[in-house]
Amino acid sequence: MTSIHDYREVFLAYLKKSITQTKPVGLYDPVHYILDLGGKRLRPVMTLLAADVYGEDYTKALDAAVAVEVFHNFTLLHDDIMDAAPLRRGMPTVHKKWDENTGILSGDAMMILAYQSFNAYQDATYKSLMTLFSKTALEVCEGQQYDVDFETRDDVTVDEYLLMIKLKTSVLVACALQMGAIIAGKDRNEQQRVYQYGIELGLAFQLMDDYLDAYGDPETFGKEVGGDIRENKKTYLYLMSEANATYTNELRALFSVDHATQTDEQIDAKKEKAKQLFDASGGKQATLDAIKKHTAHALEIIETLDISQDHKKMLAAFSKDLMSRIS
Amino acid sequence: MTSIHDYREVFLAYLKKSITQTKPVGLYDPVHYILDLGGKRLRPVMTLLAADVYGEDYTKALDAAVAVEVFHNFTLLHDDIMDAAPLRRGMPTVHKKWDENTGILSGDAMMILAYQSFNAYQDATYKSLMTLFSKTALEVCEGQQYDVDFETRDDVTVDEYLLMIKLKTSVLVACALQMGAIIAGKDRNEQQRVYQYGIELGLAFQLMDDYLDAYGDPETFGKEVGGDIRENKKTYLYLMSEANATYTNELRALFSVDHATQTDEQIDAKKEKAKQLFDASGGKQATLDAIKKHTAHALEIIETLDISQDHKKMLAAFSKDLMSRIS
Repeated sequence: MTSIHDYREVFLAYLKKSITQTKPVGLYDPVHYILDLGGKRLRPVMTLLAADVYGEDYTKALDAAVAVEVFHNFTLLHDDIMDAAPLRRGMPTVHKKWDENTGILSGDAMMILAYQSFNAYQDATYKSLMTLFSKTALEVCEGQQYDVDFETRDDVTVDEYLLMIKLKTSVLVACALQMGAIIAGKDRNEQQRVYQYGIELGLAFQLMDDYLDAYGDPETFGKEVGGDIRENKKTYLYLMSEANATYTNELRALFSVDHATQTDEQIDAKKEKAKQLFDASGGKQATLDAIKKHTAHALEIIETLDISQDHKKMLAAFSKDLMSRIS
Repeated sequence: MTSIHDYREVFLAYLKKSITQTKPVGLYDPVHYILDLGGKRLRPVMTLLAADVYGEDYTKALDAAVAVEVFHNFTLLHDDIMDAAPLRRGMPTVHKKWDENTGILSGDAMMILAYQSFNAYQDATYKSLMTLFSKTALEVCEGQQYDVDFETRDDVTVDEYLLMIKLKTSVLVACALQMGAIIAGKDRNEQQRVYQYGIELGLAFQLMDDYLDAYGDPETFGKEVGGDIRENKKTYLYLMSEANATYTNELRALFSVDHATQTDEQIDAKKEKAKQLFDASGGKQATLDAIKKHTAHALEIIETLDISQDHKKMLAAFSKDLMSRIS
């Protein structure tokens, strides 16, 4: 059986061979820069993994894997502009290293390059992949818009929040998996099952990210612990805590302070206070419960897939490994 | 025979029915806003016209026409952000009416909506249209990048300039026409011929735009006459004038003045001076000659197309009509 590490290595070698445009350099240098910044490459690995467990030569899924990864990096590039983020994986973001106009145009080119990655598939497979990809891409844009909208709203419900993270994160994970099933020639029902596995996995993964933002190990989290608290982000952790009427006012007051007006000590104190309230209100436990629930759903769906017992074990191990950051 | 006016009306009714997404409003309101701003709709009309002259029911080309128009408007939306343009067709640009982040994300959604417009075509036609569309879209991005690069270079050659306007303008016109041929089931050779007709027509059209910027009628030009001179844009008119060694230094000096430092009177004087130099250097005549040359090429290609004599006359009339602004 191929290991996740092997999929990643094969993918990275293929990615380098796939995106080779160089001129005009002002357009393509930023494309290569962001693609070379690294990352776990989880989405393309999932495409290869899905093709493999469905009995297909997984190298046939490499082009689709490239499309998913290039698209994902396109969203990071444009999101970083919108968030005015200075750093991505510890390096300057594209709009910082070059400028915003470069970031916009190079991002546009990346979306087209993602679409072009499917060109080698045959007509019917090509169309299945492309229609799924477009549907997913539009949903990701919708998720990003909801995320932007929520920043200035104070009446976001938990259901709205879950829809937002589903669109912004889960659908691309699900799409990556379904593409493997499409390339392996599986029928619509099986495609839907593995898609749903991806939705559950993506939700668990994003909720864990919300949890770890507050409770993660600064050594391994990779981002600023408490960054969401600093930015007053209304994550699942916050919303479930705020839903406890005893803590609503205190949390709202805490999450209405503009961090630009605060000293580092005040921000640290705010983070501590927020964690106390998340804990006391039951929001922390509710978040852990939700992560467990969606992980359990993902594991249940694995059992229903049309794959061998060994492959079920492999997918289950992969899923649990993804969630291992929490323990 | 269907008239250009009829194609446009049928297209506009179909466009309204095709792009119907509404939520989140922050994402889709700007999409409807820019699509409703008007314009000549030349590109989608060309797709319908091409399908028609090739004997296909032109309504079968409506989805491709929508893709071309939505993509074109996506490029306008993102270009307006990059150019910090306040107005588009006399109305506030999207990034002015909303903000830059909205412009970026709504533009992204429009590119995906353009791709989705092809969904109803059958597998083989679908793939032909999509691969042509992606190739063209990437070339348009490359053209935009060259345009940006040229702003800060003072050694742009005429050939580089022609490549830039070919990528930025002509390939989408050519793609619009070829799509009509693909939908009508014409072979690759015929597709290439009508594509080449579009390239020549697009070049003539863009060179005419360069010419009219200086010499157009303020009543009918629709933009600020002399806007390129104000902005020091190195158009074909400028480059051919500058190529005359007698005028090189004077033109370079004139085109190195930042308009932000000038009064309206000074800018008007600069426009007059530039036109005198374009005239005296032979650049004006060279531009008129180039427009004539590319128009003549376009008309010659029409004669080689596999269409009826009546349709050849119709295409020729359409081509001449496009160029009629000059006389």
